[in-house]
Amino acid sequence: MAETSRSCFGLFFYWIMYLPNKLWGKVIEMSKMAKKLGKDDPRRIVHAFKVGLALTLVSLFYYFNPLYEGLGFNAIWAVLTVVVVFEFSVGATLGKAINRMWATVLGGGLGLGCHRIATLSGRTGEPILLATFVFIIAFVMTYTRFFPTMKRRYDYGLLIFILTFSLVSVSGYRDSQIIQTAHMRVSTIIIGSCSSVIVCICICPVWIGQDLHNLVLGNIEKLGVFLLGFGNEYFKESDEDGESDNDNKSFLENYKGVLTSKTTEENMANFAKWEPGHGKFKFFHPWKQYLKIGNLSRECAYKIETLYNNLHSEFKSSKEIRSKFSEACKIVSMESGKALEELGAATKKMQRSRKAREHIENAKTIAENVKSALKINEWEGASLVDIVQVGTVCLVLLEIIQSIEKIEEAINELANMADFDTLSPQHPHVLHSAIVQPIPNCADTIVITVRE
Amino acid sequence: MAETSRSCFGLFFYWIMYLPNKLWGKVIEMSKMAKKLGKDDPRRIVHAFKVGLALTLVSLFYYFNPLYEGLGFNAIWAVLTVVVVFEFSVGATLGKAINRMWATVLGGGLGLGCHRIATLSGRTGEPILLATFVFIIAFVMTYTRFFPTMKRRYDYGLLIFILTFSLVSVSGYRDSQIIQTAHMRVSTIIIGSCSSVIVCICICPVWIGQDLHNLVLGNIEKLGVFLLGFGNEYFKESDEDGESDNDNKSFLENYKGVLTSKTTEENMANFAKWEPGHGKFKFFHPWKQYLKIGNLSRECAYKIETLYNNLHSEFKSSKEIRSKFSEACKIVSMESGKALEELGAATKKMQRSRKAREHIENAKTIAENVKSALKINEWEGASLVDIVQVGTVCLVLLEIIQSIEKIEEAINELANMADFDTLSPQHPHVLHSAIVQPIPNCADTIVITVRE
Repeated sequence: MAETSRSCFGLFFYWIMYLPNKLWGKVIEMSKMAKKLGKDDPRRIVHAFKVGLALTLVSLFYYFNPLYEGLGFNAIWAVLTVVVVFEFSVGATLGKAINRMWATVLGGGLGLGCHRIATLSGRTGEPILLATFVFIIAFVMTYTRFFPTMKRRYDYGLLIFILTFSLVSVSGYRDSQIIQTAHMRVSTIIIGSCSSVIVCICICPVWIGQDLHNLVLGNIEKLGVFLLGFGNEYFKESDEDGESDNDNKSFLENYKGVLTSKTTEENMANFAKWEPGHGKFKFFHPWKQYLKIGNLSRECAYKIETLYNNLHSEFKSSKEIRSKFSEACKIVSMESGKALEELGAATKKMQRSRKAREHIENAKTIAENVKSALKINEWEGASLVDIVQVGTVCLVLLEIIQSIEKIEEAINELANMADFDTLSPQHPHVLHSAIVQPIPNCADTIVITVRE
Repeated sequence: MAETSRSCFGLFFYWIMYLPNKLWGKVIEMSKMAKKLGKDDPRRIVHAFKVGLALTLVSLFYYFNPLYEGLGFNAIWAVLTVVVVFEFSVGATLGKAINRMWATVLGGGLGLGCHRIATLSGRTGEPILLATFVFIIAFVMTYTRFFPTMKRRYDYGLLIFILTFSLVSVSGYRDSQIIQTAHMRVSTIIIGSCSSVIVCICICPVWIGQDLHNLVLGNIEKLGVFLLGFGNEYFKESDEDGESDNDNKSFLENYKGVLTSKTTEENMANFAKWEPGHGKFKFFHPWKQYLKIGNLSRECAYKIETLYNNLHSEFKSSKEIRSKFSEACKIVSMESGKALEELGAATKKMQRSRKAREHIENAKTIAENVKSALKINEWEGASLVDIVQVGTVCLVLLEIIQSIEKIEEAINELANMADFDTLSPQHPHVLHSAIVQPIPNCADTIVITVRE
């Protein structure tokens, strides 16, 4: 008995002392998170505001008599539509709104038709026939949702089609004014969809096409940033693994996101197709081309992953062997990085950049030196691990140049499809092969002979 | 005039002759696609059947008088719930059903409360207060949906919360029997949700946890298949790029899917958490561990990507240099492949396999030989490109062994968490280092000296 009362007291004590603290901690944590989310992307706050606004606007239909008299209790479907249809981006909202509207019209129409046919079969046959129709439509449409082409664009529409068809055909059994009900439902859903789309587009619109554009080209810039830093990091003179290393790590790992962004890009492209022309993007902007560019940058990112692994390998190559390629590789890495950064930055602004081509040419010029150097067997004193490590870095850098050329080609295709402006180069600085051959440090250690 | 009539005739001709053909072609294409989809995964047909069945069952509420009298027109909400909640897998259906139920109860309750408060402020103040409440709730809940922890599990619930709150509080303005309406709505939504869940679980259930299990371990097997084939492909004696190559290509490219499966795995794990215990999976099965294993296999896949690129590189290494490492690397690749296949296959059956450990040990034994050989500089007659190419393959194979050990460790953690059975090895075949050192062919060409 004393035991029980003590444990009861313990529990009471726990509730009084511990729980409020814990709850308070949770509240503080949540509010910090809320602040961070808003800071990372202020459009989230605007979006929440927009949803509130659209919902309040549509609920006006309910409060004001003249509006209510037209629509009646069905006005509630407009509220429902706004909640379900309103998405973060214009593309997603438009996609859902359009899907919801066509599916409601078609599903409702077919539902009415089936209801008519069912009524012809008398009071006992009607529910049996209706149930059969519902089963068949649900089966066929659910199966159709598995079709990849359907899933990509019309998945939501097919769902709403089943929904409206069932609602109309089933409720027709009890509702004598079925046609009027169906008509009301279609009107309210159109009102809800249109309100959502209008609010979504008119107040600080979030264009998912723009986001996709920025994501894909930002990824290219990230690859560029890695390559810009990689040369100096890998071929650095000192062996200190001190503070500077920790500072650098973040920019050397930024590219990791590129490796796994495929699904995100595909989803965004599907939504972007719904968006009307906006800013510099026209209605038939070639969104598919972004997926191609994305895939090519992922291929480049896999190669960069090899460089990254080399940088963090358990086998460390010796400084001497690294120094033989240091100058040339640093330039190749730097020029490749600049080319990618330039490609990303210029294309982000919807411009063609001639500078990227120059950087690629520079990289290719020096790459020839690297290639020649690789063919020569003057590797006295180097262990095989050294040669393989450094050699891999060289070969991968050469492959990356090819990768960048493919990306450039895909971006040029995009530029042609979307009529980009041509940007005249402001600081032409072509490294002529005459200038760079022989390379400062390389010449000291490697005899460069180009075999044709 | 003649021109017009001719073009009209042309159009007519087009409609009569061309369009039916095109439509017929489309129909045939669609039916072929439907057949293929069903063949690839017959569970799709079963799913479509289940949706039809659940919907027909729920619509019975509408047709039979005794059931209808209890629920009235609100029974239509049960139909709506089934259409929206019924998903392909049990996890997704349960997640949506549970979310829909709690959100309806809570949202409805809060909606009633707000409606009560609003009525206190008189007929003119009521709509203003209601609109304010709707705006605040919509704003707060929409913003909450951005919280990553919320988005992962309760996104749908938050949406339904906004929906129900708006419906109840807004429709309360016109509906005098608001409490009864709210009660009906909650009952019908519970009926709809439960019907969906029961049909989904009782008829050929699709457990997404099982699918995740198979996907992650199947991916490991795919990596194994690549490694099993890679050794023979890279170090093959003949240079023929004939028919056999084309046959092989498919199994050498199967691993590509592993590179981009991250998002799929994460989504599946989120749904799997909703599933009750089934088969060998308990309710608290460590689904998170699969994400860890998935990430580790992706890291391994990036390394395999390097091997793949090497196989298709523009720089071709000479046969002589390859033959120096041929035997050892073939064994390492083969044993690594066997280890991964064994790990995948045994874990798929929820068993611990000792064989995988043996294969890893074998690979490590031979790997020591490869390491030693790499340290020796007897590479007369080989170009640097040769050395780098073959050396990279060797180093990457060594790194892959480490990668496999990490995967094995993660799988052992999983086995401990989920109490796997121990499988006794049926064919113990450990390669003792005494047997494999010296390796048949390697001994002819490389002097193996291990430096401590």
